[in-house]
Amino acid sequence: MRRVYMDHAATTPVDPRVMEAMKPFFSEKYGNPSSLYSFAQEAKKAMEEAREKIADLINSSSSEVIFTSGGTESDNLAIKGVAFANKKKGKHIITSSIEHHAVLHPCEWLEKMGFEVTYLPVDNKGFVSVDKLEEEIRNDTILISIMHANNEIGTIEPIEEIGKIAKERGIYFHTDAVQTVGKIPVDVEKMNVDLLTISGHKMYGPKGVGALYVRKGTKITPLIHGGGHERNLRSGTENVSGIVGFGKAAELAAREMDKEAKRLVKLRDRLIEGALKIENSWLNGPRKRRLPNNVNIGFKFIEGESLILELDFSGIYANTGSACSSKSLKPSHVLTAIGLRPEETHGSLRFTLGKQNSDEDVDYVLEVLPNVVERLRRISPFKKDFGEYEEALAKEQSHKH
Amino acid sequence: MRRVYMDHAATTPVDPRVMEAMKPFFSEKYGNPSSLYSFAQEAKKAMEEAREKIADLINSSSSEVIFTSGGTESDNLAIKGVAFANKKKGKHIITSSIEHHAVLHPCEWLEKMGFEVTYLPVDNKGFVSVDKLEEEIRNDTILISIMHANNEIGTIEPIEEIGKIAKERGIYFHTDAVQTVGKIPVDVEKMNVDLLTISGHKMYGPKGVGALYVRKGTKITPLIHGGGHERNLRSGTENVSGIVGFGKAAELAAREMDKEAKRLVKLRDRLIEGALKIENSWLNGPRKRRLPNNVNIGFKFIEGESLILELDFSGIYANTGSACSSKSLKPSHVLTAIGLRPEETHGSLRFTLGKQNSDEDVDYVLEVLPNVVERLRRISPFKKDFGEYEEALAKEQSHKH
Repeated sequence: MRRVYMDHAATTPVDPRVMEAMKPFFSEKYGNPSSLYSFAQEAKKAMEEAREKIADLINSSSSEVIFTSGGTESDNLAIKGVAFANKKKGKHIITSSIEHHAVLHPCEWLEKMGFEVTYLPVDNKGFVSVDKLEEEIRNDTILISIMHANNEIGTIEPIEEIGKIAKERGIYFHTDAVQTVGKIPVDVEKMNVDLLTISGHKMYGPKGVGALYVRKGTKITPLIHGGGHERNLRSGTENVSGIVGFGKAAELAAREMDKEAKRLVKLRDRLIEGALKIENSWLNGPRKRRLPNNVNIGFKFIEGESLILELDFSGIYANTGSACSSKSLKPSHVLTAIGLRPEETHGSLRFTLGKQNSDEDVDYVLEVLPNVVERLRRISPFKKDFGEYEEALAKEQSHKH
Repeated sequence: MRRVYMDHAATTPVDPRVMEAMKPFFSEKYGNPSSLYSFAQEAKKAMEEAREKIADLINSSSSEVIFTSGGTESDNLAIKGVAFANKKKGKHIITSSIEHHAVLHPCEWLEKMGFEVTYLPVDNKGFVSVDKLEEEIRNDTILISIMHANNEIGTIEPIEEIGKIAKERGIYFHTDAVQTVGKIPVDVEKMNVDLLTISGHKMYGPKGVGALYVRKGTKITPLIHGGGHERNLRSGTENVSGIVGFGKAAELAAREMDKEAKRLVKLRDRLIEGALKIENSWLNGPRKRRLPNNVNIGFKFIEGESLILELDFSGIYANTGSACSSKSLKPSHVLTAIGLRPEETHGSLRFTLGKQNSDEDVDYVLEVLPNVVERLRRISPFKKDFGEYEEALAKEQSHKH
């Protein structure tokens, strides 16, 4: 059976070249980078080379790159770190209602600790309004956190404009860029960000490693205290093999992403157009300013979860919204925020393309998907029988006109 | 040149069998364990098997094992997590003055946040007094955190007795067991601990992965919020390959550690006895109730750092105190706590033995070490010339009698 992995926003395989780079750091060059002797300094050197590669990819200085265990930790460090370090200046934070839970949940926790958080609405394509954001800025606003691109619907937010405003108003600006770094150009200078989250395993590096870009001079409290690693901002023996792999992934992305993005855009658009030929379907998120690899299609009268499992039988691996909340029965907060009704949020399906995917994969999905949708609609739990389904369909159509 | 790695308390090589177990989870079985389809569930299954293996090693239930990025994160989660979740009950914490910085620094940070911390002194071998600990318990004490064994001087603390008291008084008890799990028996029931820290890379697993044992019913706040992984206690996509390797390391330790500990004790004792034949040297830490792999020798009139570098030239990799603070000029807080004078703390050298070390390695160290010590004493920065050094020696000796 053909196997088509189209869930690259959830995680990516480690690129074989990344694996090669990592290998020596498990059982040969295994020294603790904090140790003084030459053998351990080899590990330290490799780690610093990886830091340079990540800095190069985002146009920062390497001293501004702090290694963490992944995107979620980086988001927590950025948000709680700025909040605790600047609470005397103010206790107000602005974010959006479509952030990843790694941003929303730290914000909610900070609310319990006495901070105030404004969750900006988005339009029906998932865009944050820059004007609306500006209106919400208060004298005690210490942090703005808006994601670079949404993980569910692929919307690329107007980060440069937001960064400009944040800079003018002297407010720290964080962006969760786990879905963009290594996929589209990311430049911390152009974007005017002070903090930027990166994840290794979303860009063909290993799981368990990530980074937070922290602009020089940014006041931030560590989340994990201890031996003083990572310029005292993140303690704990460094995951050397992971960091080396992450560095290699950054090097490869810098070299290959432009070409790859162009290739993915073609696959993406073909998949979108093909999927939309299925009756009673729609695209979630925008057509333009959308991640090159994101396809999110809504289907009336079915559950995304059943779709996932049916596609699984055909060797196609897709997702509903975010992998992280796939076990939850709650409707996607992102799809809710763009105005979908609860039953519509449940019928959404996300394909996220990647390096391994080919034109043939798209053909295969477009061959399998319509049949799966049709079959599921026939046994739809939303309708007692097909008669009701037909009736509902007719009602929907007349409703449209 | 012979290469003798004797810094296993800083980090260990990944066991080749661990590496084999990890390999498929980088580029083949790379699914995100939170995804619903079969392919990702393979990763989930492997992760849960690893959890079982770790639970078996410490005699806990697997649902009480929370994966983290390592020992430092686990310590932070335990201490800050209990503090934040129980602050209404009380704001007092008891720990010892010889804990790892991964425990001390979170405690110091909590002091800034309004908590009170008692740092218990230790005796001249590094033992915490159980009586003294009991005296310091207050009505508002919410947490006791005492390490299982000290990373610098190998002292094994009376954890079972402390656990018994904590249980009787209804106070949460955490122990940092990164130096003991996989080396000597650890049993969360016998020890009466509520929280226990484990690190993968200290037991021949990979860097970047660890665990926190959290006894069922323990009230604890997450440190890293997000998608709700690890029973909502530690969010972030799981480091699957790291976790699988960590599990394999636990399985191997369970099978092999008893025999290995006996072997290491012999090597350790031979190294201690040989090193103490060097004039003006002493053992830091106890002879009994000491980690099977820890040797910590003090040498008068020399700097540990110079010793490290000289030994490095001969292919011997040892450490001063903790790898994490090896770059700091401050004297070791552990050696200070056991009553050493500043100049004595600087002349200490730690060898920590491991799987690869043989009798021949000990022979080699005992051949090289006396010459290195002698050479360094001749050029000792503590004494202007050898005349003064001899004089100082004589003074020291007369002082002794």
